[in-house]
Amino acid sequence: MSTLPAVPPPVLVLVRPQLGENIGKAARAMLNFGLVEMRLVSPRDGWPNPSAGPAASGADIVLERAQVYETVAAAVADCSHVYATTVRKRGVTKPVVTPEQAAAAIHSGPGRAAILFGPERSGLETDDVALARTIITVPINPEFGSLNLAQAVILVAYEWSKGMGLAQPPAVELHEAAPQAELDGMIGQLDAMLVATDFFYPPDRTPVTRRTLRTLLTKPGWSAQEVRTLRGVLSALSGKTPRGQ
Amino acid sequence: MSTLPAVPPPVLVLVRPQLGENIGKAARAMLNFGLVEMRLVSPRDGWPNPSAGPAASGADIVLERAQVYETVAAAVADCSHVYATTVRKRGVTKPVVTPEQAAAAIHSGPGRAAILFGPERSGLETDDVALARTIITVPINPEFGSLNLAQAVILVAYEWSKGMGLAQPPAVELHEAAPQAELDGMIGQLDAMLVATDFFYPPDRTPVTRRTLRTLLTKPGWSAQEVRTLRGVLSALSGKTPRGQ
Repeated sequence: MSTLPAVPPPVLVLVRPQLGENIGKAARAMLNFGLVEMRLVSPRDGWPNPSAGPAASGADIVLERAQVYETVAAAVADCSHVYATTVRKRGVTKPVVTPEQAAAAIHSGPGRAAILFGPERSGLETDDVALARTIITVPINPEFGSLNLAQAVILVAYEWSKGMGLAQPPAVELHEAAPQAELDGMIGQLDAMLVATDFFYPPDRTPVTRRTLRTLLTKPGWSAQEVRTLRGVLSALSGKTPRGQ
Repeated sequence: MSTLPAVPPPVLVLVRPQLGENIGKAARAMLNFGLVEMRLVSPRDGWPNPSAGPAASGADIVLERAQVYETVAAAVADCSHVYATTVRKRGVTKPVVTPEQAAAAIHSGPGRAAILFGPERSGLETDDVALARTIITVPINPEFGSLNLAQAVILVAYEWSKGMGLAQPPAVELHEAAPQAELDGMIGQLDAMLVATDFFYPPDRTPVTRRTLRTLLTKPGWSAQEVRTLRGVLSALSGKTPRGQ
């Protein structure tokens, strides 16, 4: 949405991925949040992989565009900033950021970022992490940290997409609140019905009870349509418009 | 981590889930971010389901604690605020929030929240959504919105986990919202009265009219005290407790 010189979307690099199915799932997670550039470093079962397509659930464009590299260094050679995702602390002295912080940094650029994801079983090797300038760690339950590849991808892509502004949820679908006069009309109708049933008793409590009712009926901010519906309810209860009798 | 009176973690409700494998994956996603209370409404293949355990990758505690209910209403009866996750716009007038906004609201309480997730293939039905006060929609690529169940669960759980230890006390003294069961009791009382007055006419419009009424009565988030007051109003109008006669 920005009209500034665009920071290109990040490249997601799957390093030595094992199962084609997981590559497909990662592609789906990427496209869900608007990312299309996937790179593969030495996929175990070669490429293309027939298991990837079905798992991508329609995110074929990501798989078709995927480029294969022999080394991590080659895969990120054109990128300005390399991030390594890892759940464990490594014996390396690099800044560790959350996906949220990484997304903010990626959007502010300059240049294109690459984000490395390790093999399913073992994660990134120390030598892979050494190539990165920054580590991304998802803050996770310390007693159960078991993110799979597609889950790590989706959280990173999701955080990145928040900065795009092009995938907002539908605007709040609320009708305009009813004008006060219509609400007052409804409250007046109910009040008259309650007076007729001796609801307000004892008399010295009446002002407080009326205020309680007004407060709770004012709270919802009903639309004009809703107030009309409620007046229909009240009319039915007061026997003014009995049907079928 | 907070020492303030705790807002309990939300309950995640899987409504008519189809595959045990997906229930397991959802459990794993929950535990990754510290959520343990799962409820199941009419799981297609019964419960327990032997496919769930392997897919949970060690999140057995979530599956062992999972409770099964016949209806959504029963599953959320003790919850103060019900959220429905849906990707599509529904013809209902409810606020739509992001997972991030929902997480903030859930942490500020008061009371326990329930979050509904629909069946894999079709998502939540309109009647399920009608039970909720708020809709959660993940902002997603408008040209490729294909979140699966576990992905929807992980994004919601992840956003909730960010607020752990940071939960602020509510800015104003809020009364606890009435549990869903009390609200349902009030709606049931009104419904019976309206049936008696032939309000629901013609018959083929009855389901829509009932949904409209439920939507507008669910909207306020009345407190337990307010629901009691309204039941007093209804009793007065139905002539059950006439005074001074």
